[in-house]
Amino acid sequence: MVDIIHKVGIKAPISKVYAALATPEGVAGWWTKETTGGSKLGSTMKVVFHSPSGELKGEMEFELLKLDPNEQVVWRIKSGPEEWIGTDVTFALSQRGEQTIVMFGHRNWREAVEFTAHCSMKWATFLLSLRQLVETGIGQPAPHDLKIDDWN
Amino acid sequence: MVDIIHKVGIKAPISKVYAALATPEGVAGWWTKETTGGSKLGSTMKVVFHSPSGELKGEMEFELLKLDPNEQVVWRIKSGPEEWIGTDVTFALSQRGEQTIVMFGHRNWREAVEFTAHCSMKWATFLLSLRQLVETGIGQPAPHDLKIDDWN
Repeated sequence: MVDIIHKVGIKAPISKVYAALATPEGVAGWWTKETTGGSKLGSTMKVVFHSPSGELKGEMEFELLKLDPNEQVVWRIKSGPEEWIGTDVTFALSQRGEQTIVMFGHRNWREAVEFTAHCSMKWATFLLSLRQLVETGIGQPAPHDLKIDDWN
Repeated sequence: MVDIIHKVGIKAPISKVYAALATPEGVAGWWTKETTGGSKLGSTMKVVFHSPSGELKGEMEFELLKLDPNEQVVWRIKSGPEEWIGTDVTFALSQRGEQTIVMFGHRNWREAVEFTAHCSMKWATFLLSLRQLVETGIGQPAPHDLKIDDWN
């Protein structure tokens, strides 16, 4: 199994970071504006990605598999790109000095393919968007996310 | 073994991207200003990282293990952080439409540790710096690189 892992530090209380990961309103502020669904353990969120010109780039549904307030959030991908189905997106939170440390994982890819490399780079930019949202109130979610390559 | 992989697209001729990876002058423009050494197959480059306030953050030496003009560059890490020694940093280049596609790898980590997650995130920001350098002439190398967490 192949994991994408990243670390980012956010100068904000851990509760603000947690809320941005565990609610559709939060996720809409940094990943994609088109985020809908629940915010309880076991409920489902749906995310849809369009390009600025309106082209559909992708859509996924995930279950809120673990919700431990101010400690961790785990999403399990239920539908979306074939390579994503069954993978987990994990956020482990801790406080260090003035920063909330986010240990991010997108875990259990069957293999490392070009799409994995695309997603690894793209996740890094979305984590910077998460930081920007929590620190300043304004993230950079799709459709106005940073484009990184020939695909998105 | 654990690999960090990323993909980025750069709107520039492949030869310009290659030069930014295969020469100390190029690397100094996007990774760290303190880059010295050779640009021939088998020669060594040394990179030193300081914080803006002058604190030493790290230094490494790597051998130019593969230099295939406009196709690939491979660095083999010879000295530096213990986790890096013996790992390879790989750049595979190809042209697609108006973009040069960089498939990046930092390969053969013994295990996935917190430092791996830090480096994965940091590499993503340095690849954006590489893109900025090649597309605009101005990258964001250390010591003025984007800080991402409590370590650097």
